[in-house]
Amino acid sequence: MSSSTLEVGKRLVELCRQGKNIEAIETLYSPDVVSIEAMSSPGMPARMQGLQTIKGKGEWWVKNHEIHSANAEGPWPHGDRFIARFTYDVTPKSGPMAGKRVKLDEAALFTVKDGKITQEEFFYDMG
Amino acid sequence: MSSSTLEVGKRLVELCRQGKNIEAIETLYSPDVVSIEAMSSPGMPARMQGLQTIKGKGEWWVKNHEIHSANAEGPWPHGDRFIARFTYDVTPKSGPMAGKRVKLDEAALFTVKDGKITQEEFFYDMG
Repeated sequence: MSSSTLEVGKRLVELCRQGKNIEAIETLYSPDVVSIEAMSSPGMPARMQGLQTIKGKGEWWVKNHEIHSANAEGPWPHGDRFIARFTYDVTPKSGPMAGKRVKLDEAALFTVKDGKITQEEFFYDMG
Repeated sequence: MSSSTLEVGKRLVELCRQGKNIEAIETLYSPDVVSIEAMSSPGMPARMQGLQTIKGKGEWWVKNHEIHSANAEGPWPHGDRFIARFTYDVTPKSGPMAGKRVKLDEAALFTVKDGKITQEEFFYDMG
């Protein structure tokens, strides 16, 4: 296992715990990073690519949710990949769930190449 | 997402919570299942294949650990894969850690085809 993968994972989890998700994207993600959701949603394809696009997705999420609390756990590494878990207590500000406080619980699988995150895949059940 | 993937994941987590890990292997795993650890260990390669081999690995683990408590969380699904998290409080009965009580915390990534688990990959940091 590359220690770099573990280091990148630890830094990601640390920044997310501090609410610095955008800083995590800016500092840890590859220019060509691919982000894949478990499903597409209105106006957002499941697969998106490129640092600026993924940063924009993150900024949209922060702007459109009131975040009551957030936590990150892990990383659990395996070779050039690691898993992290994210839990959120949020109230969406827009869309069909606007105003409805919900708890989100998801796992994510990250791939690291040359010290940068090249892919993130989110795992969750929308019920 | 195939509902079958989610159902298999829910069943796996449920059986593991009940300590029925061997029953989970017998009922949910494909004959050709591949199991991949984050690293190899003395006498055990990282990659092993085949239902009987993986069942033997599970039976070895149960036989060689005093299990004080065990928990499983998830599943978090994405397409034909799901993630689960396992935590254990155990005392190994053999090997270099024999007699030393330890807490284990790992994530696992499972692949499901035709309603059976065809691959399991374990993610953890041995420190």
